[in-house]
This record gives sequence, C-alpha cells and structure tokens, in this order.
Amino acid sequence: MTETIRDLLIEEMQDLYDAEKQLVKALPKMVKAASSEELSEAFAGHLEQTKGHVQRLEQAFQMLDRKPKSKACAAMKGLISEAQGRIEGTGEGALADSAMICAAQKVEHYEIAGYGTLKAWAEELGLDNVAALLDETLREEKAADQKLSTIAGKVMATEESIQGR
Amino acid sequence: MTETIRDLLIEEMQDLYDAEKQLVKALPKMVKAASSEELSEAFAGHLEQTKGHVQRLEQAFQMLDRKPKSKACAAMKGLISEAQGRIEGTGEGALADSAMICAAQKVEHYEIAGYGTLKAWAEELGLDNVAALLDETLREEKAADQKLSTIAGKVMATEESIQGR
Repeated sequence: MTETIRDLLIEEMQDLYDAEKQLVKALPKMVKAASSEELSEAFAGHLEQTKGHVQRLEQAFQMLDRKPKSKACAAMKGLISEAQGRIEGTGEGALADSAMICAAQKVEHYEIAGYGTLKAWAEELGLDNVAALLDETLREEKAADQKLSTIAGKVMATEESIQGR
Repeated sequence: MTETIRDLLIEEMQDLYDAEKQLVKALPKMVKAASSEELSEAFAGHLEQTKGHVQRLEQAFQMLDRKPKSKACAAMKGLISEAQGRIEGTGEGALADSAMICAAQKVEHYEIAGYGTLKAWAEELGLDNVAALLDETLREEKAADQKLSTIAGKVMATEESIQGR
C-alpha cells in the first residue's frame, strides 16, 4: 500500500524504470526501420540517452536507499505495441517515418509527464539531488521531442503524397 | 494499408477518437474518486471538454468525407488501466489525488502528442479547417495539463507525509 508521497515517488520511478528498459529494447527496431538517415540517427542517439536514463534512475534509487526495481508499465507496453503496429502497417519511406515519429513523440510525452511529476514530488520532499537528476532526463526528453518535430517537417517535405497534391 | 499522409491522418484520428471515447467512460470514476473538490471539479470540467473533443473529431471526419470510426487505442487502454491501478492502490486523500493527477497528466500528454501531430499533418495537406479544429482541442488539452500541475501543488501542500517531514 502506498502511504506517503515518498512511496508514490518510488513507485513512479519503478514505472519509469520499466518504461525506459522497454524502450531500450524497442529503439533498435526503430533505428533499423527508419528510412530517413537523420531519423535513424536521432533514434540511435536517443537509444544511448535512454540507457543513460536507466542509469540515472538507478542512481536516484540509490539516493533513496532503495534497490532499483521495475513495476510493469502497461502504458509503455501499449505505446510500443502501437509503434510496432505503425511500422508494420506503413512499410517504408517517408510515410512510415512520419507514422513512427508520431508514435515516438507519444512515448516522449509519456516520459515528459512522468519525469515532470517525479521532479515536482522530489522537490516537495526536499530531495534536491534526486530532483536535479530527474530534471536532466526531463530536459533530454523534451529536446528529443522537439528534434522529432523538426525531423517530421523535413520527412514530410519528401513525401510524394504531399508533393503531388 | 496506409498509402498517403491523408490515410495516416485519418487513422490517427480514429486512434484518438477511440482514446477520447475511452476517456469519456473513465473520467466519471475520477470525478468520484478525487478527494479535493477542486480536482473533482477539474475532472468534471474536463469530462465535458472531452465530449466536445469527440464531437470535433466527428466534424473533422465529416470535413474529410469519412464516417467517424474508432481504431482500438492500446496506449490509452494502458494509460487508463494504470490510472485505475493508482486509484485502487492509494485509497483516498491527498496522496490518492497526487497519484491520480500524475496518471491524468500522462493521458493529457498522450493527447497533446497525438493532436500536435494531427495538426501538423493537416497543415501540410493544406486542410486548414481541419487543422484549426484540431488546434482548438490541442489548446484545451495543454490548458488542462497546466491546470492539473497547479492543482497538484495545492494538493501536495495538504499532504501530511510532506507537512510532517
């Protein structure tokens, strides 16, 4: 049973710890599936960042004197299965890339909401070192989301179904 | 098979159409479960907005000469089951409210990402009336997210586990 905001913080960290680890497994497929080189590189770069997010969560668990533990994240499972359905349903090229970017931005936003809340809770609890660590990841997730928006515009400019309209 | 950005736009609308309808069913439970009156009212207000988002999507389908159709949204299913798990795991009071706000903000962010992409696609396709409609919903989702952040701060200020630290 969750009894304090500290418990809640730890549970939410366990949720994101699972989510990040699911992502570490899913991103290599997106690196391969992307047709745009820039998109593929962005996914590869974000894979490395995501591994760092897993490590930061491990550090945060340590700061809270807890062993890192995962709690199955149903939401991330749904987000990733949606992304995979997108990859299978759109084949290759700019269209598939656009669909993948959409799915990836939903993943980023899940994490932005999660880390935003975690940071607020850590601050309320006076855990400034934990909050600072979570904020580093939050900034990277926001930057990744913005980068995807930029790439989305470029990818779409190459899409024939738009060029031909 | 998805062959054009227009197909992708329609499929993503079908995804969000299902997501919004899932939310219309889920929000009344959150209205009831919230201990803070302000939070309960915010959820009730957002329920009414969400019904409007369903209608806007129906209008957008019409503009595209398509019948409104749902495509099962696995991600929203995961997000809502997470929210329900939170309600059951935290009981009542400020702690439960904090957990519910976290879950609700993840839902908002799913929609912010979804509508953000839809709007960009509609703009690229020169469908300005559709883009304007989707943008209205996007703004409401962003405002709902910000309102939840504000309420989260107030709710936490009443939480004993923080007051007593």
